[in-house]
Amino acid sequence: MTKGELPVHPLDQALALKPVDRGRWQGATSQDYANMVGPFGGTTGAILLRAVLSHDELLGEPVSLTVNFAAPVADGNFEVIARPLRTNRNSQHWWVEMLQGEQVVTFATVVTARRRDTWASTEVEFPVVPPASELPAFSKEGVPPWPGNYDMRFVDGELMGEPDRDNPSRSRLWIRDRPSRPLDFVSLSALCDAFFPRIYIRRPKLVPIGTVSLSTYFHACGEQLASAGTEHVLGVARANHFGKGFFDQSAEVWSGGGELLATTHQVVYFKE
Amino acid sequence: MTKGELPVHPLDQALALKPVDRGRWQGATSQDYANMVGPFGGTTGAILLRAVLSHDELLGEPVSLTVNFAAPVADGNFEVIARPLRTNRNSQHWWVEMLQGEQVVTFATVVTARRRDTWASTEVEFPVVPPASELPAFSKEGVPPWPGNYDMRFVDGELMGEPDRDNPSRSRLWIRDRPSRPLDFVSLSALCDAFFPRIYIRRPKLVPIGTVSLSTYFHACGEQLASAGTEHVLGVARANHFGKGFFDQSAEVWSGGGELLATTHQVVYFKE
Repeated sequence: MTKGELPVHPLDQALALKPVDRGRWQGATSQDYANMVGPFGGTTGAILLRAVLSHDELLGEPVSLTVNFAAPVADGNFEVIARPLRTNRNSQHWWVEMLQGEQVVTFATVVTARRRDTWASTEVEFPVVPPASELPAFSKEGVPPWPGNYDMRFVDGELMGEPDRDNPSRSRLWIRDRPSRPLDFVSLSALCDAFFPRIYIRRPKLVPIGTVSLSTYFHACGEQLASAGTEHVLGVARANHFGKGFFDQSAEVWSGGGELLATTHQVVYFKE
Repeated sequence: MTKGELPVHPLDQALALKPVDRGRWQGATSQDYANMVGPFGGTTGAILLRAVLSHDELLGEPVSLTVNFAAPVADGNFEVIARPLRTNRNSQHWWVEMLQGEQVVTFATVVTARRRDTWASTEVEFPVVPPASELPAFSKEGVPPWPGNYDMRFVDGELMGEPDRDNPSRSRLWIRDRPSRPLDFVSLSALCDAFFPRIYIRRPKLVPIGTVSLSTYFHACGEQLASAGTEHVLGVARANHFGKGFFDQSAEVWSGGGELLATTHQVVYFKE
């Protein structure tokens, strides 16, 4: 950092990509976002999305992102390759992959589109919960580094806490980047993977887990995300089913003003 | 059909793939499953899944399937190419694409895995609804051909009906292949796209729509699907948000005995 420059946010450091060719970048995992083994999946997915958003053939804004975690990402350098598979008049379908040692470790498909004002309606209800300012910050003791980059304020469904009687797999929490950072598509995509594995809430038991596939649907456009600013967003996450070595979880992410910004779904491997 | 042979089910006709090389097949769209324009997306996705399940390197059973509808599928012939991107000890990540005139029209990523008995719990409640036998069959008047291949019995949320006051985007229906056919992964994957676009239930208004991305998580193993047999399954579908030209919808698919077989999510383009 040169004198007078603002420090780069840890998230932007983690997502830094150096162009090496058209549609090809180099990057490195960030220790700030380390998980138990390898990096936090939210940043891995955000790196893939960032590559698409940096591509010179990009059309529109993200509508959906599906990230498949094919193999463990090793700490260190990686390469990212993005290419449009199909460009339509108002939408585009993307392939993007992360390589280490010429092996695919993570890949994603992305749909981008020109968003336009249309008829609109939100079908799920914005939960009535206490404001972030009235809730204690989640203590990061005994967790890997990545949650330290989020200010989490749990309404209920805390990590390894007492499961709620009526909604034993559910967590509701206010969350934002720490230090605070204006919300955008890449930070929102990372945040959509920041809900702890539902099995740690529901059983609650710490067992080996790993997300295998994560899909995020963006309901907000870039302008709406920008107006959410650096405020906390509200996340509501729950599981539908655990069994035969996998569980799913779904979440809604709301702006403080009650706009549904994204819905996200994932399927997670678990042991035992 | 030679004398003495059983007739091939229309779904199996629609999903027929002729091997042309390792990991490469030819097929053709089926008029039975025609939609307003091109084929029903459920069969398109099921064809991609079927290719993976036919591949000689397959490991395990489907855990997740994400289908991206990149461009309209034209009536007629297509080619399907499937390849494993990563094979782990107990799981596998797949790429599969449908080509017409050497252009990608639809593609999918699939996770397969060896499923094992583990701790299990279903978090969503099996709805209390009348049995299929007490409900009238959905009338196929004025709809394209594909719904004619399903026996649908709506509990509520009928196509272009009166939206439910409390759940205006929700449909609950018993559904099975017509004629009946034992449930398996390909038929279940097609059925997960057989819930009418939520905008036709919620507004209700017939506007141009098209699914852009569809993810299905399989909670049941092949054995459980086989034991569901030819009975109706119960589908519960709803939207979370409509706006800026897209909406999402999510659904659960239950066996008649109350086992959660699959959860499925999609994001859909709409006009106006």
